Amino acid sequence: MQSCKEMKGKTYRSGVYNLNTTDGFEYQTFCDMITDGGGWTLVASIHENNAHDNGRCTVGDKWSSEQGNNQNTKHGDGNWENLKTFGNVASATSDDFKSLAYFSIDDAKDVMIWQVPNNTPLSMWRSNSYLRYRTYSQFLSGLGGNLQNLFQSYYPIRQGVYSPGSDSGPSFPVKYDEGSPADTLTHFGTDIQAYLTAGYIQLRTVNHAQHINAMCLGVKVDASGKEHYANACIGGSSFWGGESNCGDSSGMTQDGYGTGTGRSVDKTLIETTFLIFYR
Amino acid sequence: MQSCKEMKGKTYRSGVYNLNTTDGFEYQTFCDMITDGGGWTLVASIHENNAHDNGRCTVGDKWSSEQGNNQNTKHGDGNWENLKTFGNVASATSDDFKSLAYFSIDDAKDVMIWQVPNNTPLSMWRSNSYLRYRTYSQFLSGLGGNLQNLFQSYYPIRQGVYSPGSDSGPSFPVKYDEGSPADTLTHFGTDIQAYLTAGYIQLRTVNHAQHINAMCLGVKVDASGKEHYANACIGGSSFWGGESNCGDSSGMTQDGYGTGTGRSVDKTLIETTFLIFYR
Amino acid sequence: MQSCKEMKGKTYRSGVYNLNTTDGFEYQTFCDMITDGGGWTLVASIHENNAHDNGRCTVGDKWSSEQGNNQNTKHGDGNWENLKTFGNVASATSDDFKSLAYFSIDDAKDVMIWQVPNNTPLSMWRSNSYLRYRTYSQFLSGLGGNLQNLFQSYYPIRQGVYSPGSDSGPSFPVKYDEGSPADTLTHFGTDIQAYLTAGYIQLRTVNHAQHINAMCLGVKVDASGKEHYANACIGGSSFWGGESNCGDSSGMTQDGYGTGTGRSVDKTLIETTFLIFYR
Repeated sequence: MQSCKEMKGKTYRSGVYNLNTTDGFEYQTFCDMITDGGGWTLVASIHENNAHDNGRCTVGDKWSSEQGNNQNTKHGDGNWENLKTFGNVASATSDDFKSLAYFSIDDAKDVMIWQVPNNTPLSMWRSNSYLRYRTYSQFLSGLGGNLQNLFQSYYPIRQGVYSPGSDSGPSFPVKYDEGSPADTLTHFGTDIQAYLTAGYIQLRTVNHAQHINAMCLGVKVDASGKEHYANACIGGSSFWGGESNCGDSSGMTQDGYGTGTGRSVDKTLIETTFLIFYR
Repeated sequence: MQSCKEMKGKTYRSGVYNLNTTDGFEYQTFCDMITDGGGWTLVASIHENNAHDNGRCTVGDKWSSEQGNNQNTKHGDGNWENLKTFGNVASATSDDFKSLAYFSIDDAKDVMIWQVPNNTPLSMWRSNSYLRYRTYSQFLSGLGGNLQNLFQSYYPIRQGVYSPGSDSGPSFPVKYDEGSPADTLTHFGTDIQAYLTAGYIQLRTVNHAQHINAMCLGVKVDASGKEHYANACIGGSSFWGGESNCGDSSGMTQDGYGTGTGRSVDKTLIETTFLIFYR
Repeated sequence: MQSCKEMKGKTYRSGVYNLNTTDGFEYQTFCDMITDGGGWTLVASIHENNAHDNGRCTVGDKWSSEQGNNQNTKHGDGNWENLKTFGNVASATSDDFKSLAYFSIDDAKDVMIWQVPNNTPLSMWRSNSYLRYRTYSQFLSGLGGNLQNLFQSYYPIRQGVYSPGSDSGPSFPVKYDEGSPADTLTHFGTDIQAYLTAGYIQLRTVNHAQHINAMCLGVKVDASGKEHYANACIGGSSFWGGESNCGDSSGMTQDGYGTGTGRSVDKTLIETTFLIFYR
């Protein structure tokens, strides 16, 4: 079985299953078999291990850079696009996680996001998630069938290369299974909310200084807010100039840790793990 | 089989076994089926990869901090308390190791420690260990049934929060299967030995400056020695002020690497891996 | 089955197989069952994640040092000699990889190297490799039967200890299955080529300042070129003085990234993963 989708309609038991790849690897991951008929494969998690000033682009920032704030590596650490894996399913809310599924599944159509408090055990992911939403436009079908192909071939993470704002990627509307667009919005910095429209995910944003974020989860950023992608979006490039926006959660603590004011998200959001599923 | 304890009395063959968790994960670890009738599950190892000045709270210090000496992250890297796993059984004496067993087993009563020279292969762990000891008071039964629960709920690693000395955790006596309390004591710094009582393990110590160590293995520290926890105990917080006590082996090299004099442990102890078992 | 060699002559299907160790571990790796009758086990990969100035002996340099350019740890991070494992087969061209096979197989006789562009998927390793070569003198039989024993017992990585040039290890001729010695040479810096003889691998080199490289792959360095080991060889010690030669690819970018001029290798070579097999 190469993805949880193969079990859709056959079981409603969510949990840990054995998958394999066409190359012959065997591995374990989590299948959600409940949401909209099930068939969702957990492929990755984004976990902010340290959003304080000493944690900007240091160890644990695998979705941006573990090697500091610098402009030599224009793709950051490259993990959105390469074949590296890290972490594991059981630790997905305590550590960054990238499964073989992230790039070995190649027929994914939609993504689902669960926002879960850090360090939540697997058995409580669903019940403890405060936001759950998913795309329904099958956008991945036309963009490589998985996120690795999407970022490598369609929306590369390359700082200093793309045009501010206009080269930002598309956004796709989501349906909520837990929470709402209004709930989503409340977690972002009060000065930033005016630039956001909740109920979307957005791909590969390019800010005014050509710095890159990989994804905006739960929101899209209006064109007038291109100076604020870092305050609302995650992961991406490893260079942010003199700004304190480097790291997996980027500029989400630019005006203080968990304050929820100015450009900083609230404590709930900064201590959240984003679980990413394909179907 | 969720722990090696389920085989107690059924086999006396120590070695690698397949375990699983209630969540459905399958994994391998080492079972000691000899000591006191067997049934001991290896759950973790503490391995000091670099106790020199350039190795203080850098990569490889997973039981304290891989992100430098700083006070923003009051829990250090948090691995005593979170659900992250790292390393693997076969490399347990060459790298920090934290198994699924560390937090998925929840009915552990006692811990056993083997002190083994770094880079000892699994097949020689028992014969090459120079100290082996275990608690027998079933203290873990009342403290969450595993170390993750113990540290999360009863003795958190939080620098700057607890009262020096008096908020240090309890100590528990151990029985030796190899070596003795007297042997244990000889490895610590000559200036420190007067503050130690060998034949114990102690939990979560708080020093005069409110810095934290996670465990003292083989010794407890007398109340009069609370300035010296870092010289005798391991792991813990990521902030030690201007002092050179940050890292998995904390202040064990404060007066030089492996000298055995002043506040520094001897070369045997600084190049030791601590294997941690539950039963 | 403890190595792919046990299948030699029984199958010609290269791919992912399950192996086990004498200690009882089960794991997966890649077997090449085609070259010279097959039986080659993938045991490791050397992958340069960042050869720019900000990437010298930082995170991702597991075959040299992830803890900076320093002289305290004379063996670098020690991974050529210890029992640590890291990475995984599927990610071998996107991340450093060290399998259980690296040290658990103990009857290896020869090594084979595939030079593959970074981020090549497993299914395309063979077709995309631009150089493939292997020793045939069975040199490993007399040097411990695997590279871990070889480096630990015969050619340790110890900076500042050995005599420049004269304590460098032996070189062994290779046969090519893809490419040629002439092809190999073209990728090295134009100022360095005169010191190299292609068609060899060389072990543990000691330069004029007693800094160490672990292996030269595809070339040996002439005695007159002992100041240039770092420009042609990989991995090794963590101290290179004020020179910018620290890291898995050592001094291969000393005169710029991928220029192919002066002392710098070309872009093909600096963005190459070296896959290492035993038989």
